[in-house]
Amino acid sequence: MTSMLSTDAIAGHSARNDCWIIVHGKVYDVTDFLDEHPGGSKIILKYAGKDATEAYEPIHPPNAIIDNLPFEKQRLVLLDNRPSLDEIVNLHDFEAVAKIVLPAKAWAYYSSASDDEITIRENRAAFQRVWFRPRILRNVSVVDWSTTILGHKSSLPVYISATALGKLGHPDGELNLTRAAGRHNVIQMIPTLASCSFDEILDAAKPDQPLFLQLYVNRDRQITKKYVQHAEKRGVKALFITVDAPQLGRREKDMRMKFVDDGAGAKVQENMDVKKDEGVARAISSFIDPSLCWDDIPWFRSITKMSIILKGVATPEDALLALDAGVQGIVLSNHGGRQLDTSRSGLENLVEIVAALKTRGPWPNPNFSVFVDGGVRRASDVLKALALGASAVGVGRGFLYAFCAYGEQGVEKAFKIFADEFEMNMRLLGAKSLKELTPDMVDASALHSHAGLTPDDNLYKSIYQPLRTAQFKDGAKL
Amino acid sequence: MTSMLSTDAIAGHSARNDCWIIVHGKVYDVTDFLDEHPGGSKIILKYAGKDATEAYEPIHPPNAIIDNLPFEKQRLVLLDNRPSLDEIVNLHDFEAVAKIVLPAKAWAYYSSASDDEITIRENRAAFQRVWFRPRILRNVSVVDWSTTILGHKSSLPVYISATALGKLGHPDGELNLTRAAGRHNVIQMIPTLASCSFDEILDAAKPDQPLFLQLYVNRDRQITKKYVQHAEKRGVKALFITVDAPQLGRREKDMRMKFVDDGAGAKVQENMDVKKDEGVARAISSFIDPSLCWDDIPWFRSITKMSIILKGVATPEDALLALDAGVQGIVLSNHGGRQLDTSRSGLENLVEIVAALKTRGPWPNPNFSVFVDGGVRRASDVLKALALGASAVGVGRGFLYAFCAYGEQGVEKAFKIFADEFEMNMRLLGAKSLKELTPDMVDASALHSHAGLTPDDNLYKSIYQPLRTAQFKDGAKL
Amino acid sequence: MTSMLSTDAIAGHSARNDCWIIVHGKVYDVTDFLDEHPGGSKIILKYAGKDATEAYEPIHPPNAIIDNLPFEKQRLVLLDNRPSLDEIVNLHDFEAVAKIVLPAKAWAYYSSASDDEITIRENRAAFQRVWFRPRILRNVSVVDWSTTILGHKSSLPVYISATALGKLGHPDGELNLTRAAGRHNVIQMIPTLASCSFDEILDAAKPDQPLFLQLYVNRDRQITKKYVQHAEKRGVKALFITVDAPQLGRREKDMRMKFVDDGAGAKVQENMDVKKDEGVARAISSFIDPSLCWDDIPWFRSITKMSIILKGVATPEDALLALDAGVQGIVLSNHGGRQLDTSRSGLENLVEIVAALKTRGPWPNPNFSVFVDGGVRRASDVLKALALGASAVGVGRGFLYAFCAYGEQGVEKAFKIFADEFEMNMRLLGAKSLKELTPDMVDASALHSHAGLTPDDNLYKSIYQPLRTAQFKDGAKL
Amino acid sequence: MTSMLSTDAIAGHSARNDCWIIVHGKVYDVTDFLDEHPGGSKIILKYAGKDATEAYEPIHPPNAIIDNLPFEKQRLVLLDNRPSLDEIVNLHDFEAVAKIVLPAKAWAYYSSASDDEITIRENRAAFQRVWFRPRILRNVSVVDWSTTILGHKSSLPVYISATALGKLGHPDGELNLTRAAGRHNVIQMIPTLASCSFDEILDAAKPDQPLFLQLYVNRDRQITKKYVQHAEKRGVKALFITVDAPQLGRREKDMRMKFVDDGAGAKVQENMDVKKDEGVARAISSFIDPSLCWDDIPWFRSITKMSIILKGVATPEDALLALDAGVQGIVLSNHGGRQLDTSRSGLENLVEIVAALKTRGPWPNPNFSVFVDGGVRRASDVLKALALGASAVGVGRGFLYAFCAYGEQGVEKAFKIFADEFEMNMRLLGAKSLKELTPDMVDASALHSHAGLTPDDNLYKSIYQPLRTAQFKDGAKL
Repeated sequence: MTSMLSTDAIAGHSARNDCWIIVHGKVYDVTDFLDEHPGGSKIILKYAGKDATEAYEPIHPPNAIIDNLPFEKQRLVLLDNRPSLDEIVNLHDFEAVAKIVLPAKAWAYYSSASDDEITIRENRAAFQRVWFRPRILRNVSVVDWSTTILGHKSSLPVYISATALGKLGHPDGELNLTRAAGRHNVIQMIPTLASCSFDEILDAAKPDQPLFLQLYVNRDRQITKKYVQHAEKRGVKALFITVDAPQLGRREKDMRMKFVDDGAGAKVQENMDVKKDEGVARAISSFIDPSLCWDDIPWFRSITKMSIILKGVATPEDALLALDAGVQGIVLSNHGGRQLDTSRSGLENLVEIVAALKTRGPWPNPNFSVFVDGGVRRASDVLKALALGASAVGVGRGFLYAFCAYGEQGVEKAFKIFADEFEMNMRLLGAKSLKELTPDMVDASALHSHAGLTPDDNLYKSIYQPLRTAQFKDGAKL
Repeated sequence: MTSMLSTDAIAGHSARNDCWIIVHGKVYDVTDFLDEHPGGSKIILKYAGKDATEAYEPIHPPNAIIDNLPFEKQRLVLLDNRPSLDEIVNLHDFEAVAKIVLPAKAWAYYSSASDDEITIRENRAAFQRVWFRPRILRNVSVVDWSTTILGHKSSLPVYISATALGKLGHPDGELNLTRAAGRHNVIQMIPTLASCSFDEILDAAKPDQPLFLQLYVNRDRQITKKYVQHAEKRGVKALFITVDAPQLGRREKDMRMKFVDDGAGAKVQENMDVKKDEGVARAISSFIDPSLCWDDIPWFRSITKMSIILKGVATPEDALLALDAGVQGIVLSNHGGRQLDTSRSGLENLVEIVAALKTRGPWPNPNFSVFVDGGVRRASDVLKALALGASAVGVGRGFLYAFCAYGEQGVEKAFKIFADEFEMNMRLLGAKSLKELTPDMVDASALHSHAGLTPDDNLYKSIYQPLRTAQFKDGAKL
Repeated sequence: MTSMLSTDAIAGHSARNDCWIIVHGKVYDVTDFLDEHPGGSKIILKYAGKDATEAYEPIHPPNAIIDNLPFEKQRLVLLDNRPSLDEIVNLHDFEAVAKIVLPAKAWAYYSSASDDEITIRENRAAFQRVWFRPRILRNVSVVDWSTTILGHKSSLPVYISATALGKLGHPDGELNLTRAAGRHNVIQMIPTLASCSFDEILDAAKPDQPLFLQLYVNRDRQITKKYVQHAEKRGVKALFITVDAPQLGRREKDMRMKFVDDGAGAKVQENMDVKKDEGVARAISSFIDPSLCWDDIPWFRSITKMSIILKGVATPEDALLALDAGVQGIVLSNHGGRQLDTSRSGLENLVEIVAALKTRGPWPNPNFSVFVDGGVRRASDVLKALALGASAVGVGRGFLYAFCAYGEQGVEKAFKIFADEFEMNMRLLGAKSLKELTPDMVDASALHSHAGLTPDDNLYKSIYQPLRTAQFKDGAKL
Repeated sequence: MTSMLSTDAIAGHSARNDCWIIVHGKVYDVTDFLDEHPGGSKIILKYAGKDATEAYEPIHPPNAIIDNLPFEKQRLVLLDNRPSLDEIVNLHDFEAVAKIVLPAKAWAYYSSASDDEITIRENRAAFQRVWFRPRILRNVSVVDWSTTILGHKSSLPVYISATALGKLGHPDGELNLTRAAGRHNVIQMIPTLASCSFDEILDAAKPDQPLFLQLYVNRDRQITKKYVQHAEKRGVKALFITVDAPQLGRREKDMRMKFVDDGAGAKVQENMDVKKDEGVARAISSFIDPSLCWDDIPWFRSITKMSIILKGVATPEDALLALDAGVQGIVLSNHGGRQLDTSRSGLENLVEIVAALKTRGPWPNPNFSVFVDGGVRRASDVLKALALGASAVGVGRGFLYAFCAYGEQGVEKAFKIFADEFEMNMRLLGAKSLKELTPDMVDASALHSHAGLTPDDNLYKSIYQPLRTAQFKDGAKL
């Protein structure tokens, strides 16, 4: 991606219509900028194809050359200047890099959520209202955070949740996830709206690599039937039917962008006629069937033997209906905050839902899994959900941003960070295995607390003069 | 409104006392600015009546010409540069535009609230302390958000609440609302203090268009009687008597402006002698009768057969008194935060008041409506109020800012946004009609929570160094 | 105070050692600045004694002349440019003016509070955790907010609480309060540490003007006895013994200033040897007796017949001890946040203390008054305290800043603002007199709520990109 | 430390390769800066070895010379300009100075905490959720805050908690603490990972000075045995075994620095092979044994007669296990927020743990001490912990930053500040001795409150226009 900025053989680019210069060891194509240079084009042309650092430096502020590049070139320069992968120490770092190096439309589509984006942020905040009660003096020389998810081995108690349109962020799209997951024994959930075709993804997987499939149900059920049965034939292990999206949410950051198809669209829609003026989400979602209901579950059971999981459950009432409907599990999810804004977090719902399920028999129920997703950034988040009863946890954007920023290596680094954090935090919690995570290791008493503050007293605040610490002597202003 | 800035035939304006120039395709009348130009008037006069872009650009920062215009001209340029209506995606957008393009006095009058403006902001915040509990797998192919309000059909569960002095914000004033409401089957509540006369508004309505009337009761009851009976004769359907304003609140943003009557004042006061030095609210409200009390209700009943609604109820005690007084309903309102500051929100009061009314018979009571207003910006706000027991919801400023920014088309766009949001959110909630909105679809447990935080620990905060994500390499400062 | 800046007869000040100039209609003494002028002194001297506006304007940013004045001259210019008194619409305005026009040492002494200044801000915040429950449709044509305090008539349910060292802020010091109070039937509490002598203050009062006295008890009880008996002889009505200050608090803003006596010190200490290197509070408080205890109360009773009030009670336990000790009342106060930091507010303590006192007989108790002070800025604050059981409310800094900013007229304006606000708010609450203020008119359920938030998630916050409203078109940057 | 910047005999430094100049009375070595000077080196060389103030001043902004120095020189200049010690009025001041004058690596190591650094800030915040209920009219002429800790006299109810690698911050490292503690009868806990050797510290102590020892247990128990027995032989009084650190936490500020050993490393590791690329904490902690468990306690009992205290207890369950294991006490600690992030504060845990211990016999238990550490900055913090049942309180960073900023004198000043604050606050609380501190003197009802706010409503906030106070007249912009 960054080859256009390599440093050799630039001497030839020294014409007015093809003008490159070197500044601080980097090559810039400034052809389009010649006429806009406040100091005129002549001085630039003098250094065309050469190193201009010495002339550039005394006159310009440090980032002038980048600040004045067109947005797309600026982005490529920044991409070239990403932090090296060994400076990435947590999942936030991937997102911070992706935010800068992604094209504007991709960032808007991935990062947006519905309405006021309250739920997306609440998802993150909910984890921090659960506090740890760590136990001491247990022999934690060896700790083990591997598990099985729907009967399939996983090196982490985390699966890769489905996110759409991976090629908006990286040319290899979802394959980045498939390859890294195969190498590290992590399970990927394939999105219906993948940029890569379903078979491309399956072909990239290792022979026995377990994969799940996320399903948006089509208004034409024959299309859905064909898709599901093909997936089963190719060995997919479980079907996650999205039930919180009869229509895709109003995501205003995304709506403020105009959709232009540039080859990164969903493969399943290649020949469909999609609306293009209300953002990406609208453009790709018109086929989804809003009539999907409980009565359809037996039909799904009839067309596949894969495990069926309902993705997007938010209440104990619906959790019990799902149990009664005979599916194999549910995902407590609000679709990453992208559907109904001011919905509660999956983590908050987990507590109520586990309590309801316990009234129906032994717990944990080996035939009914409860997953949680939304806002996960740390192994400690995962451990909180597991302690409160989750079977495993889904992470979507976390891995998505990892490959947007660093491709396949980014995803592998994300697995490594999770592993480091699980080892550390399980030792500090005093749990040698995931089975030793018990509800008394967390204090979730604040989880349901949604306080309202009185709005700011702006008059008083404008007058109040905050305290400051001792001041350094004259001439040493900080 | 923006015709003064069209681009043809400006060559004639090339004299010192009539000097226009073109910059970036826009025409500016810079006559008054000639003497204030830091670079002297000569250079401007050289381009009088011509395009000055080329000379202007290299010397000035991008907005210099706007920044240096007198406030009123600046405002008109900005008005001309409003976002196009199809970029408006929510009701906040109207307010953001209105804030910039309204004359200072109008913005102060409309946006101000009493004392520390705590209640106006609490109105908004209260909705966000109610969280959704969405239901899944219901067939939501067709959803319907139409309703009846006091027996009259409405395409939305929302009516246009009364706001005074519409011409401060747009030359057509309240007629913008009347016309748009007629076309889209929405009910408008006409304000006593409209800038347009009562009959002008009625004349702008369609033959069967239902309208309500908001009433400030005059110290001279004969004036009130005549006004009410005229309204009934012209077909108004309901009388909303304001009971939370024996005196109009101290709105300091408004008080800091001096009132100058410029034809946008209330029609009902055209020949009255009003105080002009304490803001608009004081100027227009001296006729209101502070002696209005429960004993007056029978008299109102005796002069009209219209439904009578008390607007401004805040306690269960008064809700029950209203029920006993035989009126047809109440509006839980704090007057948009413009009267008694630190009053609670209508939404918060709704829960207590519905509980009290349930003790008096079957619920909902078909003969007694409970409306809520204050702070509504989203269909999701409305759905929360309806789920908690409201009959319908009033929106004042939301529609007011829509016409201030875009006239009648703005109001129509606001209806369209509401419709889009109702469709989306009802699908996501799993409610096919408003009747299917039930209290268990919301978690209102935080509604009464008004937490107090310890004031900031400024010394500690000034020393604490926040974490940052991985840094980009040298030369790529963000 | 501003006469030095009047505009006549300045032509004589045209020498290098006495150089005045006029800019924008104001006179500046720039003698000391001549050598510091970046453009040299010559150009200034050219305009010495004349109007320099025309030469000044094109070269300097708008406030250059003020920004470059020494602090004290800057302050005097600002004093001269205070908002006019009729632009003052609330008590905060006085404080905002005082903050700018007071000498640094005076502002530090008045505004400072102890340690982290948490309690001073909590005092203000506590009022905003009490919400109104206003009643409607009561005849509020006539509302009356006058009362009696310890048997003495007062036009407001508010008394002027004692604050020390009034001359730091205004040459007439406490006399500003005495004169305004006399004219408007408000009761002043005279501070032991007044800058004016006790007799000066009494001499400034009207013949029957009721006055209270605040007392710091001296280590030498004979001095205290003489002082108290002299006060009684001169007609003082009540003695407020400060019981929350065995030692004056560590007020760091004040401590960071060095005390230099310049005639504004406390009259009672004129011949005492006070420490001068740890701020004003330390300098003036060494005489206070830390051994003062309950055993001393009978002695006070024996030396005076005045009402005795204990100022600084914070717990129900001590309120009951005070009742048993036979004093006439208590002030629930934390000394304006200046003593023990993280003490609770008087308002919060009021609820518990009234509940405790009710267990001891009929309530309100005509022989035992309960006052509250701290953080009062609005009539609505006062009404909340009265509704919760307070007899009247003390306001200290509010009136202090009024005279610092505008002398006696400021205090009168403060009374007027209170009167306006009482009229408005009592009408809006539905209370015709103070007796009609009942506990059910407020919702104090959040008063004891002191929530703890999880510290900011800085990594996530640094990445999250806030939503913005629709953007104006190019060239119209806001 | 600052001698390089003294002012004499600089005239010799006037060559291009050794160029000093004086500006504003300070000497700067600008040799390396000559070529980077935007104005060229010639003008600087003209003043080499001389006072350049007059030439420097009119051209440069006030801190230009400092801002352009390399980081390390800048730091030394700032060190030279520290506030004088008598301007330090609280413990925050030390930290504010240390933050500026410490080398970057030292600040990162000392100030960092784990993951999102939530617990380190919660430690501080927890104290401010406990409010005082001060008692009045008690004779507090004489107040006494001395105590005994594990039977040893201490002038403060505070001990110096162990912090590692003191020489990163000051050449004398931990000896600063030892000497100051000896002189003021305060007890120091020696860290295993001290920069000074154990014997150096003991040699710096006074003959009878009581000292405690913090212990990280080595994978090789013989090393630990030898170390503990040597400590006992040299007179150490108690052994604080760290039980919350089977592995040292992921401290990202620290991890973002690369470890380079420069002689300030831990003495105990002098010949060990440590990882150097993941921050200081990783580098120094590989020897710690993660298998340490309850079964090891009898072995410790067998090798020493010193009191044994478990440092890092967080739950009542483990507190009772500790009691049953026969140790002499526990420290409620989360390791200064450096281990398991989102663990609760020691103060919050104290309440639950004291309640649990009370079920096991008389309280306080003379044979079982309960200490608390984390976030202490004020005597008032200490008093809150003592009132809630703590035996004494540990302060780590507070004293560490004191010596980083001012060496031994800093630590002595910190003791003095504590003493001043204890005297003040005990008087204001109405407690003459520590025994008179009772649970009813604090209101801890908010301690367990961890509220969640709804995320910001950014659209609304971007539009809302905050109130402002009255404005000064034209020309007096503030």
